[in-house]
Amino acid sequence: MAVLPALSDEAASAEARAVFDEIRETRQTDYVNNFWRVLAHDPAQLKSVWDRVGSVMGPGALDPVVKEMIYIAVSAANGCGYCVHSHTASARAKGMSPAMHAELLAVIAMASQTNALATALQVPVDERFLA
Amino acid sequence: MAVLPALSDEAASAEARAVFDEIRETRQTDYVNNFWRVLAHDPAQLKSVWDRVGSVMGPGALDPVVKEMIYIAVSAANGCGYCVHSHTASARAKGMSPAMHAELLAVIAMASQTNALATALQVPVDERFLA
Amino acid sequence: MAVLPALSDEAASAEARAVFDEIRETRQTDYVNNFWRVLAHDPAQLKSVWDRVGSVMGPGALDPVVKEMIYIAVSAANGCGYCVHSHTASARAKGMSPAMHAELLAVIAMASQTNALATALQVPVDERFLA
Amino acid sequence: MAVLPALSDEAASAEARAVFDEIRETRQTDYVNNFWRVLAHDPAQLKSVWDRVGSVMGPGALDPVVKEMIYIAVSAANGCGYCVHSHTASARAKGMSPAMHAELLAVIAMASQTNALATALQVPVDERFLA
Amino acid sequence: MAVLPALSDEAASAEARAVFDEIRETRQTDYVNNFWRVLAHDPAQLKSVWDRVGSVMGPGALDPVVKEMIYIAVSAANGCGYCVHSHTASARAKGMSPAMHAELLAVIAMASQTNALATALQVPVDERFLA
Amino acid sequence: MAVLPALSDEAASAEARAVFDEIRETRQTDYVNNFWRVLAHDPAQLKSVWDRVGSVMGPGALDPVVKEMIYIAVSAANGCGYCVHSHTASARAKGMSPAMHAELLAVIAMASQTNALATALQVPVDERFLA
Repeated sequence: MAVLPALSDEAASAEARAVFDEIRETRQTDYVNNFWRVLAHDPAQLKSVWDRVGSVMGPGALDPVVKEMIYIAVSAANGCGYCVHSHTASARAKGMSPAMHAELLAVIAMASQTNALATALQVPVDERFLA
Repeated sequence: MAVLPALSDEAASAEARAVFDEIRETRQTDYVNNFWRVLAHDPAQLKSVWDRVGSVMGPGALDPVVKEMIYIAVSAANGCGYCVHSHTASARAKGMSPAMHAELLAVIAMASQTNALATALQVPVDERFLA
Repeated sequence: MAVLPALSDEAASAEARAVFDEIRETRQTDYVNNFWRVLAHDPAQLKSVWDRVGSVMGPGALDPVVKEMIYIAVSAANGCGYCVHSHTASARAKGMSPAMHAELLAVIAMASQTNALATALQVPVDERFLA
Repeated sequence: MAVLPALSDEAASAEARAVFDEIRETRQTDYVNNFWRVLAHDPAQLKSVWDRVGSVMGPGALDPVVKEMIYIAVSAANGCGYCVHSHTASARAKGMSPAMHAELLAVIAMASQTNALATALQVPVDERFLA
Repeated sequence: MAVLPALSDEAASAEARAVFDEIRETRQTDYVNNFWRVLAHDPAQLKSVWDRVGSVMGPGALDPVVKEMIYIAVSAANGCGYCVHSHTASARAKGMSPAMHAELLAVIAMASQTNALATALQVPVDERFLA
Repeated sequence: MAVLPALSDEAASAEARAVFDEIRETRQTDYVNNFWRVLAHDPAQLKSVWDRVGSVMGPGALDPVVKEMIYIAVSAANGCGYCVHSHTASARAKGMSPAMHAELLAVIAMASQTNALATALQVPVDERFLA
């Protein structure tokens, strides 16, 4: 269905396969999902994105499950169905409970509603909010 | 700058003023920001949105500061400048540190990048992500 | 503030000025708003857009004020502040009352909320909705 | 295909089933579409959204079919395929003729085009459009 | 799957069929893709869009393959899966190589990331960028 | 106006200042624009984005001016005013003529219009477009 086919391990270049192997090791699973297999047509881009994901989504000032929920929120607002699916799976794997998911959805719905109102009304930013 | 002027307390209806008073009491500040003052042209909508914000953004399975960060993420993806400003202020008031803010921005940037790639490549959703 | 300056009548080409004159005649006002004056850098595009607006926004199966409200809805969802401003002005000029405006805003807010939920949940389209 | 399965009447909670029953009664049909069945995982959210739809989409200063057309416009601009499908069905049920649909589509196309131009040119808002 | 069925040559009006014939002649293929067949329910809109595509996408100051790549970029950012598919096919037919495609995707990803950062940070436009 | 102030050279960390210096050297100008000065609150993010811009936007299979035009197209579709301004300036610096700019705008407008139509009609992807 993609504009480029997902590459099997055999069809991928050595450089891409090395990233597939890192994905397997990091996630402790043999499964490499379609996003990476389609991105593998450009091994340099594949490696750059995978490396950045690793450095951004790991633990830090925010919990990894919180980061996955923020990822879902952005993906929903950007209308990326693939990303909503894959990061909802990741968020669950990292501990998002049904109650957390329900609250995430409620915040997404609330924000989308007030975003639309503020834009449709063109509300000017209050002085006190400016840096 | 709005398509409707922000209403002062004097110009607002009694029903709208009652919501302004609730906002003041809840937030322990005399300041009512422009969003509510512009929304006050439709007091029923004002009350409905304010009530919903109260029930959605309070503590639950997610921490209020996490909810504010999710709100910022949605607002940025939706391109709502007003909302980015007001909820960044709210997130800080609820405890978002500069380090948390920096990680939030990094996740927003990362997600926007992979959202664009997944969409530009039309990657098909993996069977295992489907409910 | 634009990436190209708004052209005065003097600075515009004869072809662009002819469109300005049509705008004035159609709207019965001497004022030509910034959108057309910036677009005037490409007189062919200016003429094409103005002609299309004339044929699309006139009376037909839908009332012109309904068309302006649909225009506002699209502009808000697309985050175009200029368009929200200019078409709110047009809608008022064509008869949109404050009560109609308030209902328009309520539908925009409602739709934005359920759009976000349907996308964040990736709800599959029901068989019966398909043509 | 959703990130959460659509709940059958049997799988839904009593609170969710009560909303399903209201949907059936209001619409005079036994069919409850997927949106509500997926939303039913959070019965409070389901009830809140359904109640709000009822109060927003009913007759008022705007005709219900006009409201459905505005809903379609927002849904298309937000890229929500599910919502485009379901509200096109609703609009037809409420009287949208093929001619009205064609004009709706023409306005959506027109607005999307000028939204893009105004944004790509960053046209400044005219003084006279400001409240 | 569309909200209106794709019209076969037999089901289309004479006016729509005439556009189908122009499409066949221009592209030197018997195949008319779904976009035009669904649009054919409104023959005037079909003709207007087809004519405009012809005048915009032909050779000029920009190479046709560059125009197709810009089209893909806009379509991806707007989340239009159909358009990403059809214009990726067009771009290839007009000479987009895999290396050009990979660079296009890298620019789309880069821009989406910095767009999100500039919006989430609400960076003010530098004086020197203003016309 | 940003949610974080633009950092002067004095206020920036040594790591951020080193990136400012690279920007100056690469562009052969003393001016460092606001985007980088606001991003400088997170020096690691600043460096990562700047490095990636360098590797993505340089010459390759696509001409740098073509890349800047693609960047403008994505930025307009994403509604990022800052990015439209800054990359229009960059595109001009790299050789975009007024005629090229006009054609870019025409393609953006055309694509936005057909994106909206394809989405509002939910046109199914043709078999032949699938990889």
